[in-house]
Amino acid sequence: MTELFPTAPDTHALEHGAVLAPRFDAEGLIAAILQHAETGEVLMLGWMNAEALRRTLETGEVWFFSRSRGELWHKGETSGQIQTVVEMRIDCDQDALLVKVRPQGDGGVCHTGARACFYRVVEAGGLREQP
Amino acid sequence: MTELFPTAPDTHALEHGAVLAPRFDAEGLIAAILQHAETGEVLMLGWMNAEALRRTLETGEVWFFSRSRGELWHKGETSGQIQTVVEMRIDCDQDALLVKVRPQGDGGVCHTGARACFYRVVEAGGLREQP
Repeated sequence: MTELFPTAPDTHALEHGAVLAPRFDAEGLIAAILQHAETGEVLMLGWMNAEALRRTLETGEVWFFSRSRGELWHKGETSGQIQTVVEMRIDCDQDALLVKVRPQGDGGVCHTGARACFYRVVEAGGLREQP
Repeated sequence: MTELFPTAPDTHALEHGAVLAPRFDAEGLIAAILQHAETGEVLMLGWMNAEALRRTLETGEVWFFSRSRGELWHKGETSGQIQTVVEMRIDCDQDALLVKVRPQGDGGVCHTGARACFYRVVEAGGLREQP
């Protein structure tokens, strides 16, 4: 799958080149942060393999690779929470993606019903729910 | 190392419990998104092992585990780009952290000199630098 994208020939090309050369991990995955394009809220962290990334770029909707189910996952296909891509960015060493999205459906992303997955604050005594 | 934190007994405790029970991956790591506490800009994605997470919680400054160097990494110790923790959140299934920070030093996080690591936009033709 990873042959869908080239490998950067050197560090300079990786960090400053104009060629998308994502570095997938040992399992063929790259982390993708979803951020709400308007509010700036960080919504969730998901994983893409090369095919999910290709489909995301091609369709303008977020595709992931579900690690638990071991299959491609068109985010929102069953829940309605389709994530429309407004902008995609990649980091300096091309091993993380930042995807600015406009959530469709009920406007959320989380399977628990929360708007975003990061609904708990870590405090000294434990976790506290705070949307 | 991972014995520093408990394991959630079931899905309900994992997703709705008040106990911090981070799920580290096969390499003992958890992804940590750094977001600027004031501007909302997503700055970088790093990795913490249990000890890095413990130190981050204890000191209020971000510690990572460097995968390339294979060692604990007090972010900013050499660069001056210390990341002061304003708030830490964990996601629904406790395998990703969102850390809202106030960057010290020159106000940036990236080793390339860019303010944030996501300085390139992915476009049809390739990558375009845009801070």
